[in-house]
Amino acid sequence: MSYYKHHVFFCLNQRDNGQACCAQQGAQAGFDHCKQIVREAGLAGVGGVRVNKAGCLDRCAGAPVAVVYPEGVWYTFVDQHDIDEIVESHLKNGKPVERLMLAPEVGR
Amino acid sequence: MSYYKHHVFFCLNQRDNGQACCAQQGAQAGFDHCKQIVREAGLAGVGGVRVNKAGCLDRCAGAPVAVVYPEGVWYTFVDQHDIDEIVESHLKNGKPVERLMLAPEVGR
Repeated sequence: MSYYKHHVFFCLNQRDNGQACCAQQGAQAGFDHCKQIVREAGLAGVGGVRVNKAGCLDRCAGAPVAVVYPEGVWYTFVDQHDIDEIVESHLKNGKPVERLMLAPEVGR
Repeated sequence: MSYYKHHVFFCLNQRDNGQACCAQQGAQAGFDHCKQIVREAGLAGVGGVRVNKAGCLDRCAGAPVAVVYPEGVWYTFVDQHDIDEIVESHLKNGKPVERLMLAPEVGR
């Protein structure tokens, strides 16, 4: 049994050298929104969902990115509607959102 | 197939309100050491090991803590020798280190 049923990590990395980074692509807004609606839906906590800040996940070419463990599903997202869909479909109902998944070859 | 075979998240959270936090308990040193020896051992990268910074993992009572996914194994550690053992036994040879695992009831 996993301590959290779904443990979500959002890359919030900020690069100051001009290279692409999640922080420039709305990562903080996605994290904040996800955290809020997971809490409002009553999904947060032990045995449920944990929404976590993370440093660089090293898949910057798909920024902004997040990963859900233990299932190891990687997402990219554009706006709050994408986050809503991930929460409703995947985190609440256990059905990963195919259309938002990172392609396997997306790396740094 | 998981993008990373082992994805390790170290809580580096710093609390400024006097509450316990991983940053006060040597988390940064553990992270830095782990990152360095994983790299030196040639384990780092896609299909291998990723050592990541994370915000509060909400198991502060066991600080400092780290979690390894996708297997969902949680650790607490005291010094660099503990990190060495996690890298050698778990990340290199696939055998989690029982003596360093967080007890299931350890929470915030």
